[in-house]
Amino acid sequence: MVKQIEVGVLGATGMVGQSFIRFLEGHPWFKVTFCGASDRSAGKKYREATSWRLEESMPSRVADLTVEECKPGNAPKLVFSAMDAAVATDIERAFADSGHTVVSNSKNHRMEADVPLLVPEVNPDHLRLLPVQHSQRSWKGQIVTNPNCATVSLTMGLGPLKGFGIERIIVTTMQAISGAGYPGVPSMDIMGNVIPFIGGEEEKMEQETQKILGAFTGDRIDPLPAAVSAHCNRVPVVDGHIAAVSVAFKQKVTVEDLRAAISGFNPLGSRDLPSAPKVPVLYMEEDNRPQPRRDALRERGMAATIGRLRPCKVLDYKFVCLSHNTIRGAAGAAILNAELMRSEGLLER
Amino acid sequence: MVKQIEVGVLGATGMVGQSFIRFLEGHPWFKVTFCGASDRSAGKKYREATSWRLEESMPSRVADLTVEECKPGNAPKLVFSAMDAAVATDIERAFADSGHTVVSNSKNHRMEADVPLLVPEVNPDHLRLLPVQHSQRSWKGQIVTNPNCATVSLTMGLGPLKGFGIERIIVTTMQAISGAGYPGVPSMDIMGNVIPFIGGEEEKMEQETQKILGAFTGDRIDPLPAAVSAHCNRVPVVDGHIAAVSVAFKQKVTVEDLRAAISGFNPLGSRDLPSAPKVPVLYMEEDNRPQPRRDALRERGMAATIGRLRPCKVLDYKFVCLSHNTIRGAAGAAILNAELMRSEGLLER
Amino acid sequence: MVKQIEVGVLGATGMVGQSFIRFLEGHPWFKVTFCGASDRSAGKKYREATSWRLEESMPSRVADLTVEECKPGNAPKLVFSAMDAAVATDIERAFADSGHTVVSNSKNHRMEADVPLLVPEVNPDHLRLLPVQHSQRSWKGQIVTNPNCATVSLTMGLGPLKGFGIERIIVTTMQAISGAGYPGVPSMDIMGNVIPFIGGEEEKMEQETQKILGAFTGDRIDPLPAAVSAHCNRVPVVDGHIAAVSVAFKQKVTVEDLRAAISGFNPLGSRDLPSAPKVPVLYMEEDNRPQPRRDALRERGMAATIGRLRPCKVLDYKFVCLSHNTIRGAAGAAILNAELMRSEGLLER
Amino acid sequence: MVKQIEVGVLGATGMVGQSFIRFLEGHPWFKVTFCGASDRSAGKKYREATSWRLEESMPSRVADLTVEECKPGNAPKLVFSAMDAAVATDIERAFADSGHTVVSNSKNHRMEADVPLLVPEVNPDHLRLLPVQHSQRSWKGQIVTNPNCATVSLTMGLGPLKGFGIERIIVTTMQAISGAGYPGVPSMDIMGNVIPFIGGEEEKMEQETQKILGAFTGDRIDPLPAAVSAHCNRVPVVDGHIAAVSVAFKQKVTVEDLRAAISGFNPLGSRDLPSAPKVPVLYMEEDNRPQPRRDALRERGMAATIGRLRPCKVLDYKFVCLSHNTIRGAAGAAILNAELMRSEGLLER
Repeated sequence: MVKQIEVGVLGATGMVGQSFIRFLEGHPWFKVTFCGASDRSAGKKYREATSWRLEESMPSRVADLTVEECKPGNAPKLVFSAMDAAVATDIERAFADSGHTVVSNSKNHRMEADVPLLVPEVNPDHLRLLPVQHSQRSWKGQIVTNPNCATVSLTMGLGPLKGFGIERIIVTTMQAISGAGYPGVPSMDIMGNVIPFIGGEEEKMEQETQKILGAFTGDRIDPLPAAVSAHCNRVPVVDGHIAAVSVAFKQKVTVEDLRAAISGFNPLGSRDLPSAPKVPVLYMEEDNRPQPRRDALRERGMAATIGRLRPCKVLDYKFVCLSHNTIRGAAGAAILNAELMRSEGLLER
Repeated sequence: MVKQIEVGVLGATGMVGQSFIRFLEGHPWFKVTFCGASDRSAGKKYREATSWRLEESMPSRVADLTVEECKPGNAPKLVFSAMDAAVATDIERAFADSGHTVVSNSKNHRMEADVPLLVPEVNPDHLRLLPVQHSQRSWKGQIVTNPNCATVSLTMGLGPLKGFGIERIIVTTMQAISGAGYPGVPSMDIMGNVIPFIGGEEEKMEQETQKILGAFTGDRIDPLPAAVSAHCNRVPVVDGHIAAVSVAFKQKVTVEDLRAAISGFNPLGSRDLPSAPKVPVLYMEEDNRPQPRRDALRERGMAATIGRLRPCKVLDYKFVCLSHNTIRGAAGAAILNAELMRSEGLLER
Repeated sequence: MVKQIEVGVLGATGMVGQSFIRFLEGHPWFKVTFCGASDRSAGKKYREATSWRLEESMPSRVADLTVEECKPGNAPKLVFSAMDAAVATDIERAFADSGHTVVSNSKNHRMEADVPLLVPEVNPDHLRLLPVQHSQRSWKGQIVTNPNCATVSLTMGLGPLKGFGIERIIVTTMQAISGAGYPGVPSMDIMGNVIPFIGGEEEKMEQETQKILGAFTGDRIDPLPAAVSAHCNRVPVVDGHIAAVSVAFKQKVTVEDLRAAISGFNPLGSRDLPSAPKVPVLYMEEDNRPQPRRDALRERGMAATIGRLRPCKVLDYKFVCLSHNTIRGAAGAAILNAELMRSEGLLER
Repeated sequence: MVKQIEVGVLGATGMVGQSFIRFLEGHPWFKVTFCGASDRSAGKKYREATSWRLEESMPSRVADLTVEECKPGNAPKLVFSAMDAAVATDIERAFADSGHTVVSNSKNHRMEADVPLLVPEVNPDHLRLLPVQHSQRSWKGQIVTNPNCATVSLTMGLGPLKGFGIERIIVTTMQAISGAGYPGVPSMDIMGNVIPFIGGEEEKMEQETQKILGAFTGDRIDPLPAAVSAHCNRVPVVDGHIAAVSVAFKQKVTVEDLRAAISGFNPLGSRDLPSAPKVPVLYMEEDNRPQPRRDALRERGMAATIGRLRPCKVLDYKFVCLSHNTIRGAAGAAILNAELMRSEGLLER
């Protein structure tokens, strides 16, 4: 067993923070030794400061950690950020400034030109933006981000098809309530209902998708020059964002081409990252799959599933794709980012 | 009070048949005097033959009717058909052959070239297909149909916009469980889940939409030469099919043009049909509406609602629309068809 | 048409207040001319001050009323209170003190010894407590209350059986989310789940039931000397509190005795109160009824339903009962109380 | 690694059968080598004969087994029965007759006087009924059963309290839809609803509880002479039956006595059975726990959870208990029974 790397979680007491704690429990490379939260919680044991809302019980080792303020001081070099957007900008920058590697799930830095917005299987080369970041910022550390949970579903589905030249995308999401955190969506709003609106989500999906599928050109990311249109909906599902996607390609492609690209897609295959799914994008043959309740948890929630690939009468092809929004779309995404960075020797500058 | 027209309901004991019975209760023009069903039920009182599944109690006058076989013999001239597709073709034709006007909710005759597929507010002129039907068939009566419940949501939303020249449509539906009848969707499949597939539904939506929005050219309907692509999903909602729609127009139009067309849309306004909604397509200003549980029942379930009209980065505009699938999308649709026919003097040949 | 009585609603902008506004729309006796709310809302139009959350649209006449502070000044003599418990005590007393009749849905005064806690069909004679209240308080007006929504389900079910001498009651409720107001229960807590706890509810049900079923003894209510034990649960249902009840009687009774008492139960029958259900406690013969989604709205939500009456191996009998929690259990309850008071000539002192 | 015991599953293609297959995957003692099903399925590969409905994918080794008819011939000595009640009686007896040990989840033999109805932690001594069975039946093998899924929740909760002399029990269950199998409960019946009736369930709970808590007297089980009254309800929950229980004891007991009995309860502790939970009945301190969605899966679904222990005003105490209905209440129950039998040397006569 190699020596584990100590990590901190910023915003450790919130819902996403709890997902980090749970997902890191038993991790072969990373060990949580620092829980950062607001002043209100600082000084308490994690078990006292936290209203634990996940299904499994709180990992006992972390439960006994004393929560600290979100200040760089004695935090480990590697910190995961699960902070609210309201506070994430300043704190993440303070950590980066002090030499920490901040692997963030917060939206604040995602669209900064010199910050990688990563989906490890889809755009691992965007890590090459880090030297640009190092040269442009005065930080001694660095910041890397993962996309919005709905963007993850879409870009995992599109990742294998990138090579065919994506030109236009129309996506309609049906998103789980856990995406809104806690207390999140009032049951009076969503029980037996659909809410055809999620504030800011469509803009995020459209922009983040263009950046993720964009090209690294030596000193910047050129966003994919594809038109992207998103319709975002909340549905009464606990976990798992599912999306109906129509897409047009530059190249002439057949269903067989696309299916082959999906089944051959495993860009991280040889790296042996602990959280990487064996089959990152699983094609399901049944005509009524994937489904959030039945498929979101495949490969510990890290695999995306895709199905119903067929011609579209308006664009070229259409399909359904799904991923787990709080695992693959949040905590698991950031942890996989950190694993990729370690395998690239990029965890420390 | 004018003398009421006696009507029959074919397939009266099933879920859709029950909706007809309920919706016709207290109707000012029509009075149910004939309930047709399978041999198994014939001879029993309606109350004994029927496992009533609707919220209100069974109308007592109909409850005492004796169920009859679905044979033309002594049925009233006007019959509504709520029959299963498996038997509807032959029985509807037998009734038409014997001089009955069959106003059908079944899918069997919808795509026949000489059978009107009506949404009264959208294509009332398609009734002019009836003389064509009369000349081409040997029937002494006639058949008129209404579309699939999901097509109704879409075409009600598009109806006001028809004049701008619809060229391409991508629609993603989120459909209620009541659309699948009873017992319909197993709870183990849909509870907290989305099923991204409804057998045959996408094809129906694509074809029926082209026919409804098509042009009557003197002796036939020329389907709208627009590309239509549908993604159909089942969601855990009891009543109300909601759709996310992207649309491209031939003409250059502004949001204001479209909004004006919607608010001015009331083609049946002067006719005073008992089941016609006062505002057939209601635009909702709130950014998170319409919603199935809160809006499907507006105007006794006969109004469609629409909202979130905004530019689409791939096609021209996008919006959300909703209608009640078992009322506006089934029984109410057929009854409004019959009301329109009466106001046009077309109920009897 | 008789002249309508002007009424006010205190706490008019909240969820329960909205239910009052909706239920009073079109009321033959009462007309809302005063909407009281917090300082924050006072001075705005009702439509601007209120985030309307009910299915039907906001009644337009009330929408244009200017919201006022909850002060007795120019409010009508009769006011309905839908205020939060945090503020209801002082404000209701201030109104009573100034000569108003306060018909309250708030819990604050329910257990006061000289305040009637009314279910009109069950204990109408408890209005005789009003002279006691008049003599004991310095108020120029008066206060009358209705019970907690879950207590209504139970006492409506027990009301017809009161004459047999109720000795012991064990009740397990399954309560709808609307009982918790808005935003109320987070969807993350209740979707596909049961929460076996509702703060303070079991105590309220136990005490209120004893008071409602108690006897007026000339100058006070002697609570029913029956042991009452409640288990209260939240379930994923929108409207309608259903309860499984076991009960022991002093007298020996048969199922037939109980069924006869239920079917003969209509103590308000001759009074012609506008909101009184024709059949206040409807016995359903089907073995799987009543059910909240299908039965809570009977008689505009004012009727209770009951079913499955059968022997209990521990106490004497057991049954299931149901009523609509926001109508029969809140706004409708208070309005029926006011109707009963008017028919007794007790609206004004 | 010891040599694994080969086992068969009768009714292997149904929902409960699938649970057996899943739960036995990776089992250290048992290895599925025989899948029995109806004639219709016999001869096909398991993967072809089975419409797999569980979340995880079908275990691949079993997927390749050829399904056989449910006949004793070449089945392993130990068979688990997941058969429908309609056919279980004859087939289970045929297997027992031929020398097989039948560990059954079917209801057919549960109430036979000489058949153990086991909850391993609660009445392991009832296995001593086997010699009685051997002497009374002509079978060369034997039959052992586990209770109905709702009875498991109740008896796990009551097991630790047995020593205080249980006299009266009133239990109200809120049961998950998975308890009804597939297709099971129509979504139109249960979505946003409660069904206060499950056919035959109340009788099963009342009788089975008395047998399980009864005393082995050398040649028979004397059922617990306690009155048991059950109210059974279906609620919109996927997995996990939760029950609200009131109980009266012969002895005077305190809450502390009961809590101590629960926390000290671990009768199988020293046996090291692979499927036995470390803490069989976990007391949860939070006032709103246990909850089905959050707690049913504890210890792989084999632990029961209990909470809210408090005085009852009618009987002595009341509490809430929960267990996973398809794991602890079905497949897992039977497998734990077989593990207990093996540890007692009773798997083979």
